Amino acid sequence: MRDEGRRPPLVAVIGPGDLPDDDPRLALARACGRGLVDAGCRLVTGGLSGVMRAASEGARSAPRYAPGAVVGVLPGSDPDAANAAVDVALATGLGVARNVLVASADAIVAVGGCAGTLSELAIAWQLRRLIVALRVPGWSGELADRRIDDRVRFPDLPEDRVFGADTAEEAVALVARWLPEYRRRR
Amino acid sequence: MRDEGRRPPLVAVIGPGDLPDDDPRLALARACGRGLVDAGCRLVTGGLSGVMRAASEGARSAPRYAPGAVVGVLPGSDPDAANAAVDVALATGLGVARNVLVASADAIVAVGGCAGTLSELAIAWQLRRLIVALRVPGWSGELADRRIDDRVRFPDLPEDRVFGADTAEEAVALVARWLPEYRRRR
Amino acid sequence: MRDEGRRPPLVAVIGPGDLPDDDPRLALARACGRGLVDAGCRLVTGGLSGVMRAASEGARSAPRYAPGAVVGVLPGSDPDAANAAVDVALATGLGVARNVLVASADAIVAVGGCAGTLSELAIAWQLRRLIVALRVPGWSGELADRRIDDRVRFPDLPEDRVFGADTAEEAVALVARWLPEYRRRR
Amino acid sequence: MRDEGRRPPLVAVIGPGDLPDDDPRLALARACGRGLVDAGCRLVTGGLSGVMRAASEGARSAPRYAPGAVVGVLPGSDPDAANAAVDVALATGLGVARNVLVASADAIVAVGGCAGTLSELAIAWQLRRLIVALRVPGWSGELADRRIDDRVRFPDLPEDRVFGADTAEEAVALVARWLPEYRRRR
Repeated sequence: MRDEGRRPPLVAVIGPGDLPDDDPRLALARACGRGLVDAGCRLVTGGLSGVMRAASEGARSAPRYAPGAVVGVLPGSDPDAANAAVDVALATGLGVARNVLVASADAIVAVGGCAGTLSELAIAWQLRRLIVALRVPGWSGELADRRIDDRVRFPDLPEDRVFGADTAEEAVALVARWLPEYRRRR
Repeated sequence: MRDEGRRPPLVAVIGPGDLPDDDPRLALARACGRGLVDAGCRLVTGGLSGVMRAASEGARSAPRYAPGAVVGVLPGSDPDAANAAVDVALATGLGVARNVLVASADAIVAVGGCAGTLSELAIAWQLRRLIVALRVPGWSGELADRRIDDRVRFPDLPEDRVFGADTAEEAVALVARWLPEYRRRR
Repeated sequence: MRDEGRRPPLVAVIGPGDLPDDDPRLALARACGRGLVDAGCRLVTGGLSGVMRAASEGARSAPRYAPGAVVGVLPGSDPDAANAAVDVALATGLGVARNVLVASADAIVAVGGCAGTLSELAIAWQLRRLIVALRVPGWSGELADRRIDDRVRFPDLPEDRVFGADTAEEAVALVARWLPEYRRRR
Repeated sequence: MRDEGRRPPLVAVIGPGDLPDDDPRLALARACGRGLVDAGCRLVTGGLSGVMRAASEGARSAPRYAPGAVVGVLPGSDPDAANAAVDVALATGLGVARNVLVASADAIVAVGGCAGTLSELAIAWQLRRLIVALRVPGWSGELADRRIDDRVRFPDLPEDRVFGADTAEEAVALVARWLPEYRRRR
C-alpha cells in the first residue's frame, strides 16, 4: 500500500475503550490492526485499552510488523499511560481534543463506538478522510454505508461515503482500494 | 437562570454554517439565541456564519442583552473573522479542534447540523454536558430524544438523554429546567 | 479604544498563579485589569488565581466595567474552577495548550511570569500579537524592551518589540497607542 | 537507553525551521538526530524544514535506524507537508498549539531557536520534561545551564535545570544520563 514512493499510510483504528474481554469487537479490532500492518500501513490509536489495545496487539502480531509501527495518541500527559503494545506514545495532555489527532490519520477504521468514537468519525469526515466502519453494534454500525452529511467532499469521487465492512479483511481491502484515491485528492 | 449566586451559564448554539437565507433553521437559531439571553444566559457559538451568526444576532436582539453576552470561538487565529454580532472573539487557531471548546459550554442547543455539529454533540456527551436538540433536519433531529451511547453519565439522573425540542421556547425551557440539575452533578 | 466601529479589543493579562498575597505584582495586575476595562477593552486571563484573579478583580472594580467584560480560559473542563471575578468561563480541557488561547488575544500584558507565562509570551510573538511587559521580576521583566526573535513581524512597523512598562498606566497607554497599528496589519 | 523494559524513549529535537543551508546548527541538529537514534531513542520533531528536517535526516542516517523511528507533528492537517525523512506524520491541524505536543516528548533537545522553540522549551519545563540545550545562538543558548523558573519540579533532584551542551555527543550523553531519573519521577 505504498503509492508513489510515499511513506506508509498511518491508519487509525477507533472504538470503545471499555469492552468485556470476550466481546467479539475486540477480536475484530485485533484482526484489523494485524491486517493493516501486513498491508503496509502503520497504526494509530488513542493508546488506551479496549479496541485501542486490541488493535495495537494485533499490529504487533503481524508478520510484517516492525517496531515503530504502532502509535498511541494519549489524552493525558503521561506517556506511561499507553498500553504495552504501543511503540510511539504521544502524551498530548489535550483531553478529549486528542480525538482530533486520531481522526487526522490518513484513513480511519471504526469498530463499534460510543460518543468518543462518534466524535472521531465526525471529525474525520470534516477533514475529508477515508472512513471504513465495521457493521457491528455501536456507531460504526450505525454509520456504515451512509454519508455523515450531504456535503460534496470530492466532486470527482462519486462513491464517497462511510464504507461498511463485515470483516477485518474487508476493511483492510477497502483501505487498500480507496486510500490512493483519497490521497491523490488531498 | 442563576442558581446559587453563580455566574450566568454559558450556552452554546450549534449548527451548520452555510444555510440559505430562507432556511427555517436560521429563524430557529435566532429565536434560541434571543430566548437564552432573556433567560439569563450568555451565548457561545463557533463565531462564523449560518446558525452561528443567526443565534448571535438573536442574542443581540434580546431585551436583556448587554454587551459581552455573545462569545465566538473561532477556528482560525484572526479575531476579525468573527461575525459582527460577536462581542468576545476568541481566535483559537486550533482548526476543527475548536469544536471541543464550543462543546464545553454549560449546555448545548443544536439546530440541525452536519459533521461539525455532530462532533460537537458527541464531545458534549462525553463531557457530560446538558444537550438540547431541535427536531429539525440534520443531526439535531437524528439525535433528539435518544442517548448518544449507553454509558451512565449520572447514576442518579434517570432522564439523561439528548432532550428533543420543537421550538426555541421549548429548547430554552429545557435548558432552564435541567441545567441546575446537571451543574449540581459536575 | 474602539477603532473603526469594531468590537472592543480583548486584552490578556498574564502572570504567575501562585504569588503571596502581599506581592506587589498582584497590585500591578489589579491596576492593569482596571485600567484596561476603563480604556474600553475586555479582559481575558487563564481564569485561575494569582495574577489571573487580581487582574479579573481589578477589571470588575473599573467604573466602566459591565458584566461580560472578564473572560477566563481554563485548562480543565470544569467551569466552576474559574475565580469568582470571571464573567465568562471557558473550560477548555486542553491542559497547558490553553495557553495558546490566552496568547491569541488582541494584545497581551505580562506581569512577572514563570514558565507558563513565558510560553504565552513566545506564542503571542509567533502570532504577531502586541505585547506589553511590566519591568518587574519574572519573564515580563526579562523580555521587556527586547524582541523575542529577529524575525520581521511587520515590515512597515520599525518599533515592533516587547514594549516595556513600569506602571499599569503606562502599560494601558502602550496598548492604546499601539493596538490600532497592530490590528491594521493583521 | 531502554530502562525497565519500557518502550524506547521519544526525544524531541527542536529549533528554527528556516536556517540557511550552511548554518552550523543544521549539522548539529543532524548529529543530534543520529546520535539519539543510535542511543536507542526515537525522534520527534515539528516535521517541517530547518532543524526539524536536519534532525530527521540525521536519524535516518544512524546505523541503528529502523523505519518508524522518526515522528513529525505537523501544524497543518495535510500529512504530505512533512519532510521526506519523517516516517510517521501526524497532521494535527492545531496550528502553533502543536508545539505543546512536541514539548510533551520524554526529553527535549534544543538547537538554537526563535519564538516557537522558546514556547516549546517553556512548555516542556511546565510539563517537567528533561531539557538539554545546545550552547549556540538562539534560545537554546540563552537558556542553557539555567532554570526557566524557580519552581521546584522534583524535590529530590537537586540538579534540575536546562542542561547545556556544546556538542551533539554531549547532548546525547546528557539525555542518556538523566532521562531514567526523570522518568522514574513522573
